[in-house]
Amino acid sequence: MTGDFVVALSGGIGGAKLALGLSRIVPADKLLVLANVGDDFEHLGLHISPDIDTLMYTLAGLDNAKLGWGRQDETWSFMETLAALGGEDWFRLGDRDLAVHVERTRRLRRGESLSAITADLCRRLGVGPRVLPATDDPVRTRLRTDEGWLDFQDYFVRLQCRPVVLEIAFEGADDARPHPDLLAALRDKRLRALIICPSNPFISVDPILAPPGMREALSACAAPVIAVSPIIGGRAVKGPTAKIMEELGMKPSASAVAERYGDLLDGYVMDVRDAEEAAHVAPKVTLAPTLMTTLAEREQLARVVLEAASGLTSRKRDRDFVA
Amino acid sequence: MTGDFVVALSGGIGGAKLALGLSRIVPADKLLVLANVGDDFEHLGLHISPDIDTLMYTLAGLDNAKLGWGRQDETWSFMETLAALGGEDWFRLGDRDLAVHVERTRRLRRGESLSAITADLCRRLGVGPRVLPATDDPVRTRLRTDEGWLDFQDYFVRLQCRPVVLEIAFEGADDARPHPDLLAALRDKRLRALIICPSNPFISVDPILAPPGMREALSACAAPVIAVSPIIGGRAVKGPTAKIMEELGMKPSASAVAERYGDLLDGYVMDVRDAEEAAHVAPKVTLAPTLMTTLAEREQLARVVLEAASGLTSRKRDRDFVA
Repeated sequence: MTGDFVVALSGGIGGAKLALGLSRIVPADKLLVLANVGDDFEHLGLHISPDIDTLMYTLAGLDNAKLGWGRQDETWSFMETLAALGGEDWFRLGDRDLAVHVERTRRLRRGESLSAITADLCRRLGVGPRVLPATDDPVRTRLRTDEGWLDFQDYFVRLQCRPVVLEIAFEGADDARPHPDLLAALRDKRLRALIICPSNPFISVDPILAPPGMREALSACAAPVIAVSPIIGGRAVKGPTAKIMEELGMKPSASAVAERYGDLLDGYVMDVRDAEEAAHVAPKVTLAPTLMTTLAEREQLARVVLEAASGLTSRKRDRDFVA
Repeated sequence: MTGDFVVALSGGIGGAKLALGLSRIVPADKLLVLANVGDDFEHLGLHISPDIDTLMYTLAGLDNAKLGWGRQDETWSFMETLAALGGEDWFRLGDRDLAVHVERTRRLRRGESLSAITADLCRRLGVGPRVLPATDDPVRTRLRTDEGWLDFQDYFVRLQCRPVVLEIAFEGADDARPHPDLLAALRDKRLRALIICPSNPFISVDPILAPPGMREALSACAAPVIAVSPIIGGRAVKGPTAKIMEELGMKPSASAVAERYGDLLDGYVMDVRDAEEAAHVAPKVTLAPTLMTTLAEREQLARVVLEAASGLTSRKRDRDFVA
């Protein structure tokens, strides 16, 4: 292991847990967390970036552990009043959370980039590692379901993932560009590991990979790429990953997720409970307890992933050596 | 007194007090409160209508008596967090108040008119009388001061009325149209009185009068026009009325306000303390205690004004009789 820099790809809750674990053992200036923006949407005239916010709040220690989403010490006067005024209240916005959306929206309208605004908000909230949107361009996850095409948050929050998913698309992805700072990080010889957090592969990681050149840039980096399975014992810890896999005709299993990431992966961390599937996984498997209930478990899994990565050689590097 | 319908012109706090008094003695469906929109502004990407909101909250019994502005049972999590994020916090927005701005802004962007949105918000908040924006078109009060031209809220809130006012302009007024429902009310033979509340003549009433045809429509109505002085004993109860009068070269007095309204007025209610000025006032004067500290005083002044109006004949009506 020669490098000292880590890049982690993450969606919301599940990914943020591992990102927090990583942030406790990797120095802040050596960790870049690449956030999914496919969940972003316009609501009540505000630009909302749910995954960026989950990462910010979690990494700042401001996340609401009781709710499992949103901010600590939250109040709900705005939402309560909005409901009384007949406004849309299906997407719950706390009073403190709202300040982030209002300020971000104001600055976006002024022409600032999402990444610059995120960097400043992180600094003010006391987030150590860099949280970088996968792209500054709009990418919007949409789902074709048995109820027709749905915007992501319509599916995810308003309809609580009830519709059957038939197809997933990333609107805008074809015109989106990976952030130049990410591309620079991926070219950096000091990069030690590229970690795909245990996020939903379809709606959290795929939109990160969707812009042209992104997958290629990740594949081409000299560091090993290692993913953590979001499926444990055939079930998702949280969210619709297993349900979506079934609806798309896959068996919901840790090995099926690895298969889906394909030759992007050099290594794969899956739960000890899924040991019997290891034989069917192409990249090098590390078995570990992957359920992260406590902070200690987050930190422990982060250690396991980094150690596993240090034992891996990127196949690209192999190719370099061969060449 | 033949009619049974009352129209009141009002700015924020002071005007809203009399409007509340009127609302307690005039049936809800017989009272129309015409609200100044010259204070409206865009802030944090939101359309804010301070005078409409003050009227709504006051007439709904939801006003914050302790603060003297804003809503009851307010919380401040949004503002607190916004300040921590480096956002603009000079214009204090409570969490509940914010719901009104967000919902109004969303509906304005969807193409609804300010008057339609106001009517709906009033209904949902339980406001009895109709609150009608003076116009659905944008009118923005701007002030030329010793610090240059300032937007109204910059002058009023951010700089706390400290700059010396040299000139006042109403941007957009030339293209603004009085609301058709107001014009219909003014033509209605059942109109009993047109009341100018004790609001600031320069920054609350003048912007209402500014759109072409507005002053003419008010002058032409068959009912008497009666104003209540916002100046008591040479001083404004609240706000910069006296200060602005001095800066514009007027003596801050009840009689100077009447003089400024000119031939628009058929009657004028001024405080008993200003009795000695009555001789210098052209329209018919009614002396009364005009300080409205208690709800009973608001109701009492409303009675005095309506009784005074019933004793007046509109000079337009005189002219009709002559003709």
